[in-house]
Amino acid sequence: MTARSCLSIILAAGEGTRMKSASPKVLHKIAGLPMVAHVANAAKAAGAGDLALVVGFGAEQMREAAASFAPGTETFVQEERLGTAHAVLAARKAIARGYDDILVLFGDTPLLEAGSLSAARTKLGEGAAVVVIGFRPPDPSGYGRLIEKNGKLVAIREDKDCSDEERKIGFCNAGIMAISGAHALKLLDAVGNANAKGEFYLTDIVEIADAAGLAVTATEASFESVLGINNRAELAEAEAIWQKRKRREMMLSGVTMIAPETVFFSHDTEIGAETIIEPSVFFGPGVKVASGVKIHAFSHIEGALIGPSADVGPFARLRPGADLREKAKVGNFCEVKKATIEAGAKVNHLTYIGDARVGQGANIGAGTITCNYDGYSKFFTDIGPGAFIGSNSSLVAPITIGERAYVASGSVITENVPADALAFGRARQKTLPDKARELRERRANAAKK
Amino acid sequence: MTARSCLSIILAAGEGTRMKSASPKVLHKIAGLPMVAHVANAAKAAGAGDLALVVGFGAEQMREAAASFAPGTETFVQEERLGTAHAVLAARKAIARGYDDILVLFGDTPLLEAGSLSAARTKLGEGAAVVVIGFRPPDPSGYGRLIEKNGKLVAIREDKDCSDEERKIGFCNAGIMAISGAHALKLLDAVGNANAKGEFYLTDIVEIADAAGLAVTATEASFESVLGINNRAELAEAEAIWQKRKRREMMLSGVTMIAPETVFFSHDTEIGAETIIEPSVFFGPGVKVASGVKIHAFSHIEGALIGPSADVGPFARLRPGADLREKAKVGNFCEVKKATIEAGAKVNHLTYIGDARVGQGANIGAGTITCNYDGYSKFFTDIGPGAFIGSNSSLVAPITIGERAYVASGSVITENVPADALAFGRARQKTLPDKARELRERRANAAKK
Amino acid sequence: MTARSCLSIILAAGEGTRMKSASPKVLHKIAGLPMVAHVANAAKAAGAGDLALVVGFGAEQMREAAASFAPGTETFVQEERLGTAHAVLAARKAIARGYDDILVLFGDTPLLEAGSLSAARTKLGEGAAVVVIGFRPPDPSGYGRLIEKNGKLVAIREDKDCSDEERKIGFCNAGIMAISGAHALKLLDAVGNANAKGEFYLTDIVEIADAAGLAVTATEASFESVLGINNRAELAEAEAIWQKRKRREMMLSGVTMIAPETVFFSHDTEIGAETIIEPSVFFGPGVKVASGVKIHAFSHIEGALIGPSADVGPFARLRPGADLREKAKVGNFCEVKKATIEAGAKVNHLTYIGDARVGQGANIGAGTITCNYDGYSKFFTDIGPGAFIGSNSSLVAPITIGERAYVASGSVITENVPADALAFGRARQKTLPDKARELRERRANAAKK
Repeated sequence: MTARSCLSIILAAGEGTRMKSASPKVLHKIAGLPMVAHVANAAKAAGAGDLALVVGFGAEQMREAAASFAPGTETFVQEERLGTAHAVLAARKAIARGYDDILVLFGDTPLLEAGSLSAARTKLGEGAAVVVIGFRPPDPSGYGRLIEKNGKLVAIREDKDCSDEERKIGFCNAGIMAISGAHALKLLDAVGNANAKGEFYLTDIVEIADAAGLAVTATEASFESVLGINNRAELAEAEAIWQKRKRREMMLSGVTMIAPETVFFSHDTEIGAETIIEPSVFFGPGVKVASGVKIHAFSHIEGALIGPSADVGPFARLRPGADLREKAKVGNFCEVKKATIEAGAKVNHLTYIGDARVGQGANIGAGTITCNYDGYSKFFTDIGPGAFIGSNSSLVAPITIGERAYVASGSVITENVPADALAFGRARQKTLPDKARELRERRANAAKK
Repeated sequence: MTARSCLSIILAAGEGTRMKSASPKVLHKIAGLPMVAHVANAAKAAGAGDLALVVGFGAEQMREAAASFAPGTETFVQEERLGTAHAVLAARKAIARGYDDILVLFGDTPLLEAGSLSAARTKLGEGAAVVVIGFRPPDPSGYGRLIEKNGKLVAIREDKDCSDEERKIGFCNAGIMAISGAHALKLLDAVGNANAKGEFYLTDIVEIADAAGLAVTATEASFESVLGINNRAELAEAEAIWQKRKRREMMLSGVTMIAPETVFFSHDTEIGAETIIEPSVFFGPGVKVASGVKIHAFSHIEGALIGPSADVGPFARLRPGADLREKAKVGNFCEVKKATIEAGAKVNHLTYIGDARVGQGANIGAGTITCNYDGYSKFFTDIGPGAFIGSNSSLVAPITIGERAYVASGSVITENVPADALAFGRARQKTLPDKARELRERRANAAKK
Repeated sequence: MTARSCLSIILAAGEGTRMKSASPKVLHKIAGLPMVAHVANAAKAAGAGDLALVVGFGAEQMREAAASFAPGTETFVQEERLGTAHAVLAARKAIARGYDDILVLFGDTPLLEAGSLSAARTKLGEGAAVVVIGFRPPDPSGYGRLIEKNGKLVAIREDKDCSDEERKIGFCNAGIMAISGAHALKLLDAVGNANAKGEFYLTDIVEIADAAGLAVTATEASFESVLGINNRAELAEAEAIWQKRKRREMMLSGVTMIAPETVFFSHDTEIGAETIIEPSVFFGPGVKVASGVKIHAFSHIEGALIGPSADVGPFARLRPGADLREKAKVGNFCEVKKATIEAGAKVNHLTYIGDARVGQGANIGAGTITCNYDGYSKFFTDIGPGAFIGSNSSLVAPITIGERAYVASGSVITENVPADALAFGRARQKTLPDKARELRERRANAAKK
């Protein structure tokens, strides 16, 4: 990476009315992360240390979001919406600090790749004053064309202003630019608004720089990577592209997926090699899976750690704070929240484990519930190594079940059970011979009347 | 919509042997609704007030179905299968009543759009005697071609009868027609059966009308919209197209779907803006979802109302009569049937709520079961506002839990609990020190022998 | 099928480093069956009675696997990796036994179709000495071309060695060959290694046989069917193709799938006509489903039998040994393992049935658990016909619930219940008026301090 200093200005003032949303468009999420955070991440990965966010609609919401996804980001409010150059100049104070490189990015292009930005910055390093990122869509009609002469970029021409010859050009303007910090303010201030809409267009700096004898050039990014999102159908398309990329990367690194198209990752999901994932698995944010794990179908996992050779699902729900150690097993219709399932422990069926530790090798019977909430506070359940909890038991927290202790099936346990002890908490059975027949006959007679 | 009177005749006499089914082909469903009902709905939306259904195979089953999906539909039995014109004439009595417009539709084209029918009716209103609906498939070979001369339709030519020149025509016959009521019977009666199969073909009326100097013309429908279904693979393809349309419509109206391709709607699903749907959600018939709802992955919802900002799933099952009010929450491995979950109430884990009311703000602990069935009848459980039901409790209906009452974890509740009361229904715990160790050792010794 | 004797040699010595796996590549699974087993099955279906497996990496693991998926398979170790002809000759002892036909197959082409092998064998029967299986990829560049002259195959030319004219040939080498047993050893021994890599290439036998005046020819297989798998992304692609084939076959035979793309079958899944499968259903190995069954969304089924008109799911888990008889019902959040659910019996909600029989027409209430495991052994639960098990009951095995017996809700049952008897196993309820209010106020006061 270049040692040149860099400021990334992310334009994110628009409302995005076609999203039909009370939230700013760029806060809608791809892979669990706001679109604009993806753009910020690409900028950071391309070495852009400082971020300036130009906001407008929902400014306060944007500021809060930025503080979370990219702490230290400066925000600038664009009070009026007078065009892209005007938007960039909202960050004038930041630009004026004197960076080597300025990147102008858009908050609604979440698939942008760091490599494209690095390539543009490299060209700045080689002396270009302006570098425009272009792309080649399957059908260029409607897009602004990049007009090149002798390897230099001389203009960006709107589709409607193109000559027939220019209209044949397949290389189009993605909007994204890298500008030499030394020339940025002068170029931006030279942009006028003598056009139909009376707006200040950033694209004008290409001709301005060219006319001033400065070097202007273009680099190419893939079509997909510069897709702009304007409604929720496009949001879903971008999500699909993101997921496809991620799945392929996972598979090539040694993860098996029977039906990758039904497995959904989060922006930060990590999975070790030789892990096998059955169809229909959903990963929310904050999941790390080790190697050799088996994740069965219909599992929903977020904020969880899964240790080597663990076995999860089908129909498992792992919530934040679930921490499964080596060879732990969480099976069908089980929910684990803020709980450690130690090595080799088994939570196999219809169980809720919340605010708890399940010790090494412990066995939790079907239908067990840790009663962790009394309506006011949450309490901890500590189950020792080698303990056996009989099926359909209720463990009323706070409670400790000692090592190798045994809880009989169907028990309600309200007092600590010492190590090696056996605890019952269930009523004696009473059997009334022939009573079921009597009841049945009484019912039948009642129905006849 | 035109004020002209209109009769829609839907041909649905075929067995559809390639479906390999005991049910008539057109009763197989798309989006939870029989194919033929989709056609009837398109006709109704195009202003065709009266429906005539021509049935044959499974006539009785067809009649019953029609009474349900389009009450008031007349059915006519086509006793012999002698061609499409013969089938239309099975409804002679209806035609003879004298409508302005007659639409001839097919029960196995469930994606038909009302707009195509309205366009055809408009042409009747402008003086056409016959309007044929055509389409342009990617590859026209095999289809009958619409032969036009000077903007008039002069014939429909079977592929095998086409000249080389005609075979190049891309505009094909969808079978669907709009016929002027004034001419319909005369045209239909003029159709002969002097052909290889000895059948009466509806397509012949084009040439008959043209020869009689009547105006004949065509309108175009999309290829997808006139797909005819002949086996269950095609049924699935039509379902996929229907779902894709519906998802797009939903997303453009403000619904977020992370993976729209894994979300399945029913014909009547309604969803408010700003609702977010995670992957793998299935909607059966009769669901209305308000705005700002979050539906997590792996939820199965039918016949349910979901109020604003409610939170559902993952792994939630809402069955008919589930009525979730504002900010209600139904979480993982929970089933709700014929029950109101009032505002802010929480049913979070491993719970069955059937035939019940859960009052405002009440909290239902993990593993709670409303025991609503005694083997003979269903009974009601009424849980008051602010009540707290401890985990793993059984509420034996009929029963009332009063406002702000508290049920201890693991209780079996068989008597009403007054407001503000505390109820227990569980056995005292007994703990036998060292007994688990003894049992273990006894087992180990037994195993040695 | 021909009566000629046949040996299939499956080359499977490679490690497949791009799989990033400790297991040999060909043991990775498609539809629940190792890739190499699919190849073996195609060979068997084409009448190749005897199988020889040439192994190298993970030889021991391969031998064990072969003993399971194709008992009787001989394995031969290729000690050094010196080319495909060298690999085939590892099985020299088997070849020398004198078969009419020798098939040379690759363990990493799991989609190979028996028909392609039969076609090649037919040509051997007609006098060919060598038959090469070719295919026509969308883009042939990179593949070896089949060079034909006057209908005879004269050479297989590597892409890099092709003339411009030869490079236009679209017919490519799939590697798979059928060789006349009478000539096989002589041809293979004639292969030299005077090439850049110093390896013995099987493809050389084409020119050798042609030069010797023997008949050499080619047959065509579909592109998809000869796909070779080299990494887990390709494994997933092959799985997708396999699933697509299987789903189509199922639908054409009378199975309805609302969203076939979300239903995953195993290599041996059998399903009867008129069965309806909702979206998102996963079939592991060993499942047979009868006719007229309804399988609701989010079901996970392996090793199970499902009888006519049974109803499964949504959210059902059927594990090995589940045996659902006619009209049995297993509903949401239910797990059934090694248990018979007899005709018309209902297991509808949040239940675990393991090691059990549920008698005809019995009704199992929500939240019932068969407590089949005491930490040491598994025990049987026998529930008689017509029995009613109240909700949230625990049945502590070994236990017998007699015919028409009735278990009250919330009971823990530890002793057998005779036929027609009524059993309780729950504590008496105690209700403390106003106690919930007191607790609440105490909490509120505590919080204030």
